[in-house]
Amino acid sequence: MQGLFFDGTLKLRHDLPVPERTSGDALIKVLMTGICQTDIEITKGYMGFRGILGHEFVGLVQESDNPELRGRRVVGEINCGCGVCSRCLKGMSNHCTQRTVLGIAGKAGAFAEYLTLPDKNLHLVPDTVSNEEAVFVEPLAACFRILEQVTVHRDHTAAVLGDGRIGLLCAQVLKTIPCRVSLIGKHPEKLSLAEGMGILTRMVNAAAGSLFDLVVDCTGSPSGLPLALELVKPRGTIVIKSTTASHQPIDINPVVINEICVLGSRCGPFAPAVRALQEKTVSVAPLISGIFPFSNALEAFRTASQKGTIKVLVTIDF
Amino acid sequence: MQGLFFDGTLKLRHDLPVPERTSGDALIKVLMTGICQTDIEITKGYMGFRGILGHEFVGLVQESDNPELRGRRVVGEINCGCGVCSRCLKGMSNHCTQRTVLGIAGKAGAFAEYLTLPDKNLHLVPDTVSNEEAVFVEPLAACFRILEQVTVHRDHTAAVLGDGRIGLLCAQVLKTIPCRVSLIGKHPEKLSLAEGMGILTRMVNAAAGSLFDLVVDCTGSPSGLPLALELVKPRGTIVIKSTTASHQPIDINPVVINEICVLGSRCGPFAPAVRALQEKTVSVAPLISGIFPFSNALEAFRTASQKGTIKVLVTIDF
Repeated sequence: MQGLFFDGTLKLRHDLPVPERTSGDALIKVLMTGICQTDIEITKGYMGFRGILGHEFVGLVQESDNPELRGRRVVGEINCGCGVCSRCLKGMSNHCTQRTVLGIAGKAGAFAEYLTLPDKNLHLVPDTVSNEEAVFVEPLAACFRILEQVTVHRDHTAAVLGDGRIGLLCAQVLKTIPCRVSLIGKHPEKLSLAEGMGILTRMVNAAAGSLFDLVVDCTGSPSGLPLALELVKPRGTIVIKSTTASHQPIDINPVVINEICVLGSRCGPFAPAVRALQEKTVSVAPLISGIFPFSNALEAFRTASQKGTIKVLVTIDF
Repeated sequence: MQGLFFDGTLKLRHDLPVPERTSGDALIKVLMTGICQTDIEITKGYMGFRGILGHEFVGLVQESDNPELRGRRVVGEINCGCGVCSRCLKGMSNHCTQRTVLGIAGKAGAFAEYLTLPDKNLHLVPDTVSNEEAVFVEPLAACFRILEQVTVHRDHTAAVLGDGRIGLLCAQVLKTIPCRVSLIGKHPEKLSLAEGMGILTRMVNAAAGSLFDLVVDCTGSPSGLPLALELVKPRGTIVIKSTTASHQPIDINPVVINEICVLGSRCGPFAPAVRALQEKTVSVAPLISGIFPFSNALEAFRTASQKGTIKVLVTIDF
């Protein structure tokens, strides 16, 4: 089958084997795949992954032991735990040390004709949710993870740092509570997109002086956490949504003095993400910067890496 | 009155005014004061404080509007909020921006004949708790703060990093839950003290390989947080109890990948600390490295700064 393969360089290949389905797994024909910042980082060496990239997808179930899944349009959770270790048994398969992760660690990904995932990882996509929208379920679920970790009240103030893909989704998710959320970024055009969604915005150089109960760092930059520490109230919470490649000296003392909770946040629940798209409480169409055919996937990656781009999708159109 | 004054250098003075009591405050004759690491840091420039040092004390109430307090032996909470701002009204006077802090910020401290504190900051000391024990209430309360912030279960495993004053108190507080607590340190003699209290111990160079639900960093060292990140389970909690003077580059990515909660922790509730001393569930006498008369307070500070010293007390014996 065809697929987008990374082996130190990124290349389209036509000689890849269709992944083998084992019992409990589904074979899924991919319809559309999104490019995530993690994909771009992998092409720079992150995770040392070699194989077919891609973990944000929507597809059609071709084969499954479960008749309720066969022929249905699905999205899928990307972590595959071993199922037998103590973490898996505690419902923490996202942290299983033996896990594979679709297109990120030990498992062929979604920029290809077919992929496999366990049936239990799959979620049906309602007919009213388009493929273009469904591709956002995985990153949107990661934003809903915040609501599992932090109790956010209506009278809370929240700041989302970073006006990229995840920042624009996180701000919308927090607005569903609803709490008073401000998106703080560097790009006027992205901030005005957020304003169109009814979200307060501020340029980062005008952010000082306000204090928030919750600050979500979606900058992916080493400057994110120090800024978050400036903007959070005493006893407030900082959620870190994105990893950063470089490490810089951080003054941790404000965490102690102001009794801040700094919380790492990764993958999240698919069900509320699917529901938010179905109920149109979160809007993802304005975030699409371009849709490329698979034959142009390399160009799609170049576009996704450019400044100003929000989200790039690839149609798997074989 | 006499007092230990810091104005860039630390000196005994005999010409200090007795602090003036205002309505709602108590005038307290100090009986005994403990030297805290914060006091030592202040003599190195921390907080820019100038004045009488000292915030860990036990004393006798000389004057108060409250007859229940007059003549009684008390310990006192050290933060004095303005009482009228939104933080004070929310019970967060410890984070009031206008607050003074006994012997640390804007308020003359406890290495002196007299101090003043608001009546509402005071807690009676039971007769069965000695002066030497009562001086530990303030740092012990800071350890009990952890139990306000984190839900610790009996089947949880906890590691306390650092076998100094606070580490030895924190480990005992966690043992009261009881949860399975290990003290990880560098000093065999301090670790064997902890073993005598029924606490598991490990030398820091033998700490790798175990994972804990809760890690409390009491090292006061920039190496504490990176070690804590190695020792904490996914979705576990790291409590930072001590500030550090130097900042070093920290790889924050494990916080995200393992969804760790990093929580700053400062002053805590006095009531459970007094109760623990009364009920002998926490043992502080073995932590006393020396008791000095006030006339030898400078020597007491030198001793407190030496390696191997745990806790030094000063008798205010005028």
